[in-house]
Amino acid sequence: MTQFQIFCDAHLGEDIFKLIREGISPHRLILPQSKGGSVLSVGPTDAGLFEAEIALGQPDAASVLQAERLRWLQVTSAGFTRYDTPEFRAAAKARGLIVTNSSSVYAEACAEHVFSFMLAQSRQLPLALKTRCASGSAPWNELRNASSCLQGQEAVILGYGTIAARLVEMLAPFRLKITALRRHPRGDEGVLTVTEENLAGALSTADHVVSILPDNAASVRFISPERLAQMKPGAVFYNIGRGTTVDQNALAESLHFGHLAAAWLDVTDPEPLPDGHPLLSAPNCFITPHTAGGHTNESETLARHFLRNFQRFVGNEPLRDRIM
Amino acid sequence: MTQFQIFCDAHLGEDIFKLIREGISPHRLILPQSKGGSVLSVGPTDAGLFEAEIALGQPDAASVLQAERLRWLQVTSAGFTRYDTPEFRAAAKARGLIVTNSSSVYAEACAEHVFSFMLAQSRQLPLALKTRCASGSAPWNELRNASSCLQGQEAVILGYGTIAARLVEMLAPFRLKITALRRHPRGDEGVLTVTEENLAGALSTADHVVSILPDNAASVRFISPERLAQMKPGAVFYNIGRGTTVDQNALAESLHFGHLAAAWLDVTDPEPLPDGHPLLSAPNCFITPHTAGGHTNESETLARHFLRNFQRFVGNEPLRDRIM
Repeated sequence: MTQFQIFCDAHLGEDIFKLIREGISPHRLILPQSKGGSVLSVGPTDAGLFEAEIALGQPDAASVLQAERLRWLQVTSAGFTRYDTPEFRAAAKARGLIVTNSSSVYAEACAEHVFSFMLAQSRQLPLALKTRCASGSAPWNELRNASSCLQGQEAVILGYGTIAARLVEMLAPFRLKITALRRHPRGDEGVLTVTEENLAGALSTADHVVSILPDNAASVRFISPERLAQMKPGAVFYNIGRGTTVDQNALAESLHFGHLAAAWLDVTDPEPLPDGHPLLSAPNCFITPHTAGGHTNESETLARHFLRNFQRFVGNEPLRDRIM
Repeated sequence: MTQFQIFCDAHLGEDIFKLIREGISPHRLILPQSKGGSVLSVGPTDAGLFEAEIALGQPDAASVLQAERLRWLQVTSAGFTRYDTPEFRAAAKARGLIVTNSSSVYAEACAEHVFSFMLAQSRQLPLALKTRCASGSAPWNELRNASSCLQGQEAVILGYGTIAARLVEMLAPFRLKITALRRHPRGDEGVLTVTEENLAGALSTADHVVSILPDNAASVRFISPERLAQMKPGAVFYNIGRGTTVDQNALAESLHFGHLAAAWLDVTDPEPLPDGHPLLSAPNCFITPHTAGGHTNESETLARHFLRNFQRFVGNEPLRDRIM
């Protein structure tokens, strides 16, 4: 049997490396000389990468292409911007390099996160949690009247993949009218789909616009001043995709003018936003620090996802979350 | 045709009274001389009540029993504590007084509200919304690790009625193990049920304990020091029932000791809590000011619920949300 060398530049903790070592045995785990990065940040280029047939982490894209022995790269995030270029795709295809990501590791947490945003907004939690007032008082009547029910409202989801599909399942009991933007609708989405040409109409009636767009050449500033203006007055914008997909100054303005009622963002550009950034002082702009995919024992979920794929790789079966 | 006099002591606004007048025509609406209370608070006793066959609002219980012409009372809240005594029930039964509440008006909003609490807790929104940090930093790792997924967890629901049934529907996509406490399980709940004798076991493994208990003689301080101690370390307690059902000092202590991870309360005793109340300084105690049932156009939903029941009353059909 071939012995595979698996290079891992993600900083996962000793117990997780132990789990991986046991899971891949008798194959061999190679760790970089210097400490690895987080599961989201690019790791330092390390000689270990060039010995490996398999890499787990976020190795630098150019180094990946120079690593001639490499047959499979599993990216430790759902996003894979640094590999998503025509050049990388072409080179990977030419040499038969398989690339998988970890979207199924984060899909549940991401979908729950944006759903928590939608419900917190509907139930006015940020204001309600800091209001102490008596029943029947003016602030009480205002707060109750500003609270709403998701049931029967309209939502647009930008980007239809694993996370969106799970969100659609979660929203089913609320009987929303859901429209999803998808570049190439397949017809099996279970919700209405539109392509970019027909998006404006859907935006004009949606109460909730949820972006799960990845960062790529087509998505940069996708949420432009024009698209913000197409949204219904009082609509709420949510972003758990990537910060680069939004014209952030235009979003801040829309919130200041009161065109959008609120924005809930788990991603910004850059992260974190610098002091004085217009979104930090925009009214009803709620930001979490890129924690949508986070969950207890995340490194373990990630390792087990890799190990399941590793067994498939060894057995010549199709890998899960394959992106190239 | 008999002309009914409908007394309404709820302060609903002129447009809503107009809607009711149109809906009941040619029957007659009687408003009190002095301004009515909120939909939750007892209205002043008014001579109008004694002319009416039908009352909508929160008239004083003793006055209701003195109002000899009265045949039907529709309470404008889901809770009906002030009428829920053996004496009132017996007197109502003896004279054939029908009592309905408005639980179906508030069920959707209440269920969405407590669900928003559960997701906000799972996704650590209170902390995440005030944390600005970089990916890979210590607070970021802590926050992601403290975040969790509802999927596959365990919940206990105390009190199984309209709101609980709706919450169970909403939780279905999350595949939680749900156990409901019900005085008289019917077997059609679609979830495991327990009565009080077997509650301790269910509490000992639940991640989430959701109370929807009404305020009555049996429920006062139901959440006692003993029951709090029975809950699993790290469990989270939610209350959208009534504040009187909780030993609030014991709850505050449990939060201080870190036995419960958090409490999310829409109801307290009294409301609002006075300055210096231990729950106001208890760690991870999140309070909204009895807004769970609130929603846009709430008075209109309430009026339409009454009008639908009024048509049933006139047509001698069974009324919705009948409680006596």
